[in-house]
Amino acid sequence: MLHLFGKSDDLIVHGRAPFNAEPPLDRLRASFITPQALLYVRCHGDIPALDATHRVSVGGLAATPFDADAAELAARFAPHRVRSVMQCAGNRRADMRAVRPVSGDPWAAGAIGHAEWTGARLADVLRAAGCRDGDGLHVAFESRDVAETPDGPARFGVSIPLSKAMHPDVLVAWAMDGEPLTPEHGFPLRIVVPGYAGVRSPKWLGSITVQDRPSDAFQQAKDYKLFPPDMRPDTEDLSRGFTIDEMPVNSAICVPAPGAALAAGGVAVGGWAAASGRAVVRVDVSGDGGRNWTQAEIEEHDGSPWSWSFWRATLDLPAGEHELCVRAWDAAGQTQPALPDDTWNFKGYLSAAWHRVRVTAA
Amino acid sequence: MLHLFGKSDDLIVHGRAPFNAEPPLDRLRASFITPQALLYVRCHGDIPALDATHRVSVGGLAATPFDADAAELAARFAPHRVRSVMQCAGNRRADMRAVRPVSGDPWAAGAIGHAEWTGARLADVLRAAGCRDGDGLHVAFESRDVAETPDGPARFGVSIPLSKAMHPDVLVAWAMDGEPLTPEHGFPLRIVVPGYAGVRSPKWLGSITVQDRPSDAFQQAKDYKLFPPDMRPDTEDLSRGFTIDEMPVNSAICVPAPGAALAAGGVAVGGWAAASGRAVVRVDVSGDGGRNWTQAEIEEHDGSPWSWSFWRATLDLPAGEHELCVRAWDAAGQTQPALPDDTWNFKGYLSAAWHRVRVTAA
Repeated sequence: MLHLFGKSDDLIVHGRAPFNAEPPLDRLRASFITPQALLYVRCHGDIPALDATHRVSVGGLAATPFDADAAELAARFAPHRVRSVMQCAGNRRADMRAVRPVSGDPWAAGAIGHAEWTGARLADVLRAAGCRDGDGLHVAFESRDVAETPDGPARFGVSIPLSKAMHPDVLVAWAMDGEPLTPEHGFPLRIVVPGYAGVRSPKWLGSITVQDRPSDAFQQAKDYKLFPPDMRPDTEDLSRGFTIDEMPVNSAICVPAPGAALAAGGVAVGGWAAASGRAVVRVDVSGDGGRNWTQAEIEEHDGSPWSWSFWRATLDLPAGEHELCVRAWDAAGQTQPALPDDTWNFKGYLSAAWHRVRVTAA
Repeated sequence: MLHLFGKSDDLIVHGRAPFNAEPPLDRLRASFITPQALLYVRCHGDIPALDATHRVSVGGLAATPFDADAAELAARFAPHRVRSVMQCAGNRRADMRAVRPVSGDPWAAGAIGHAEWTGARLADVLRAAGCRDGDGLHVAFESRDVAETPDGPARFGVSIPLSKAMHPDVLVAWAMDGEPLTPEHGFPLRIVVPGYAGVRSPKWLGSITVQDRPSDAFQQAKDYKLFPPDMRPDTEDLSRGFTIDEMPVNSAICVPAPGAALAAGGVAVGGWAAASGRAVVRVDVSGDGGRNWTQAEIEEHDGSPWSWSFWRATLDLPAGEHELCVRAWDAAGQTQPALPDDTWNFKGYLSAAWHRVRVTAA
């Protein structure tokens, strides 16, 4: 199955139907631009079998609705390239699950990647359709995949505010890292919304609809919300959650791996850090569980607010057991919570506590 | 002295020379628009004795520099009104000082206020001066007050990026809540930069200069930076701090007061919450030190990203001692750190841990 997808053989597979997998962190950290074969895969149903003739419709509150396939979009609209993180709202859920049970796959810190996306600007596409403009409007996307929901099988659907949709970096994308999208990443067309959780960047795009309310599809209306800590799965008052669009500042140690046996002395530590449209201004690393901190070097960053940063540091570790920690800071002086319990929610979303890795030096 | 300033008699005065004072929290919470007499006062030197004929110069990288007094600005530029929080970077420093010593006045949670400011758009003023536009430029402000600095007495000065200066809500302001600025709040003219720490909104404005680098005045170059936790006052490598502009999401319990003796049963709790240009989407309140949380009602908010929210909740408190806590969440799912130690820095800036108030119910 992995072979069919053209994905790397060493992905950590959380489930096969639907297919959900993430790369090992050392592999993820090896390339500032994530290869398509290594990008995490989050599916809600089977991967639709679409070919290049698949057409996307653009309509709703639009004077001149139209439909087009990928080649027609590429011919009609100036291609635009954007480097952006793609990150699942459930990234690092495993850490939150260690506190108390949560629903959903136990993602480690690899449900994130950073790619160069190519496509038409959604704003250009919406203008070409003569879409209405105005406060309070939304752009809904329906995909061709079918998800199991509590209400039965239904097409995957989400929406974003029109004000965000008009940002020049929001794309109807046909390529990742210069290659056509592979089937598991949305071939032939997907949405890319920089700065928003991955769920708002649907794959296998079927339709784009301007409307006066958010999508009423399950994923928009009843899921992917940050629920308060006192809310349990059997609580049905979904109005108590807020829609996850932007995500908090987060970071992870990719090297060394948890449980690593190291030579005492200077130990190289490295990982990623990302904020949602804000710059990462500092990364702190600790070798003693957060009692003392030192600043990591930002090894690689490209200046885009949508990109991640690669950081590295050398920690001097004497023989013994050590808890390594990392936390990043964004330009507003926001940093990560110390403990997963500080922000626990029953869906395990936005898990962003100091990332901790226990190692032994000898 | 308080009488001279026209300030409320019950301000908590941290120092008289320079004059630094904040309102009691119950007084602050009594009005969604903070009266000028109650707004915290942060001075770095004596209050300059300026009259209405005081002129501000606009120049630097500008084709047509000019100077003007407040009346001329009001006649030449369309007045613009903006509701915005003004908050000191050191607000809530007292909580951080309780962990380990920090420098600066021990502000409680009252070094914040929310006002309607009236003035000319800084962007209009810069355009009228034919200021150069472009990436990497800064707008420097010099004030008429003189601060004691480690390098001797010097005029107060700061700067903001030109890209922020051109935002239509950044003002050269002459009025607060419809009244001319009082002397302690910058009469006759001050800058108002919504979403940034108060230090970037200088009072007693003397000059506006477009330049190719940040201000080299003490307050910009060597102070008001977030320094890492391992840095101590005797460390001189200021490059390790990052300039505080935007501020993290924060909140405080204004009622009841610390140490209050209450009747057991339903206890009304209320306070403020603010994020820096992001919406506050939820406020959690705890009656047991953060073990269990309930959601507060947002009692008042005006929809502006620069405004604060007033929240309230009723907690059921049995007889005994209780630690009340509050934490707010912004639209990116950022919330506050649990403990002041989590973000401690030797200047005590951006103190935003869960605000805790101990009370007794009988």
